[in-house]
Amino acid sequence: MSHQMEYEFVKVCHADKLDTERDRLQSRCICLDSLSVPQPMIFARRSLTTSITITAFERSPDGGKELARDTRVRWALEEVGQLYEVCLVSFRAMKEPAHLALHPFGQIPTYEEGDLALFETGAIVFHIAERHAGLLPVDVNARARVITWMFAAVNTVEPPILELGIARLLEGGKPWNKKCLPLVEERVRNRLDQLSTRLGDADWLDGAFSAGDLMMVSVLLRLKSSGILDEYPNLGAYVAPGKSRTAYKRAFDAQLVAYTGKPPTG
Amino acid sequence: MSHQMEYEFVKVCHADKLDTERDRLQSRCICLDSLSVPQPMIFARRSLTTSITITAFERSPDGGKELARDTRVRWALEEVGQLYEVCLVSFRAMKEPAHLALHPFGQIPTYEEGDLALFETGAIVFHIAERHAGLLPVDVNARARVITWMFAAVNTVEPPILELGIARLLEGGKPWNKKCLPLVEERVRNRLDQLSTRLGDADWLDGAFSAGDLMMVSVLLRLKSSGILDEYPNLGAYVAPGKSRTAYKRAFDAQLVAYTGKPPTG
Repeated sequence: MSHQMEYEFVKVCHADKLDTERDRLQSRCICLDSLSVPQPMIFARRSLTTSITITAFERSPDGGKELARDTRVRWALEEVGQLYEVCLVSFRAMKEPAHLALHPFGQIPTYEEGDLALFETGAIVFHIAERHAGLLPVDVNARARVITWMFAAVNTVEPPILELGIARLLEGGKPWNKKCLPLVEERVRNRLDQLSTRLGDADWLDGAFSAGDLMMVSVLLRLKSSGILDEYPNLGAYVAPGKSRTAYKRAFDAQLVAYTGKPPTG
Repeated sequence: MSHQMEYEFVKVCHADKLDTERDRLQSRCICLDSLSVPQPMIFARRSLTTSITITAFERSPDGGKELARDTRVRWALEEVGQLYEVCLVSFRAMKEPAHLALHPFGQIPTYEEGDLALFETGAIVFHIAERHAGLLPVDVNARARVITWMFAAVNTVEPPILELGIARLLEGGKPWNKKCLPLVEERVRNRLDQLSTRLGDADWLDGAFSAGDLMMVSVLLRLKSSGILDEYPNLGAYVAPGKSRTAYKRAFDAQLVAYTGKPPTG
């Protein structure tokens, strides 16, 4: 099967055309109607056997180029070979009751599989890693260390990086920004110094590629536009092979096609 | 056995008196020598059967009153009835190679058990919860949801709270602080609004008390001095029974005694 063949358009009916037995996926996707999209469409890797549905931005701030957090979940699903469907959610719908029932903080991604509904990227990636081989070591101690890196990525490395994003983008025009920004950048560099020292010249954080690397690489990618990552050659050399993995590329393509409307031709 | 009986002083020899077979615990604790403490002591709940050692601040910024992250690990260990020893680490020693080998970001707590060395509070609490009954539901879906709340606590709720701490304490004298602070407070309130809405009048986040509640209550306790938590009665009513749990009280006492030198009399 070619790569292209695995994508197809999924047409979602307008609310007044849905029959009374519509499922929750359809109910939520109908939020697109409120934006006057005549025939809202979702791009998904469809399969009759998959029961996994995730949510992603209807209009991603970066145009679907890896920075939204659904990239991490897509990447994990591709690493373990699980097909999934995607429901695109508008910014308005993210704050409405139907979506808040799935994600109390009104964000994406969410993850639904049968009766299970999860949010928080770290937890979703861990759930995927725990249930399918490929992202967690079998050795119990190595497994615990990989989980440590998953938490470190989102709890220790990502917060100053997000803070930098806020300082640069949202508060860029504020009068204090010029004085405040160097302090935030210092906090980012402090973390990168420490991570760079620990990584050394290793390929991955602990043994083979794992869910810990998937999370850490995803977090470091957020620094792309800042140029700060370029100051750390070994971190750059750590991120690059992560992005070169087949599973990452498939995740990236699947995310991008949702916004460009053009399935990859590769 | 009385509560008091479970605490005892552990005397750590100076470096020049350690025999050549000293273990890693002793080697690290000897860092206290560099602060010219004549007879460094560690308060610990000792047991001949425990093999768990955690690290904590030698001089805690809050004097041992629940805000340091070792509280969360102590609490988890008390919930599952595991004894542990504590190695106190100076701020200088936290940045030295021996400690950085345990914690690449130079923080506390760390967790050692046999050959396993972990850092990141969330990962340590999860490790404890996974290996001992009491903090994770048996039902697989409920377990996945609790892990979601563990990640949400440190990844979604705690970052703006830490940012507020930095803005208030470290940057309080900066000229931009008065204008910047309201924006940070708004980010904290936004998260608390959402958490408060989700919690409603439930006792805990998902079913019975779990590792997710342990983490979330611990994160919310960081807001104590800000007064912001008082704006959310249901969150206050959520935190209070968490703090009233026997395991929490034992953890609190054990942390406090390390700094006051006086074992609890209760």
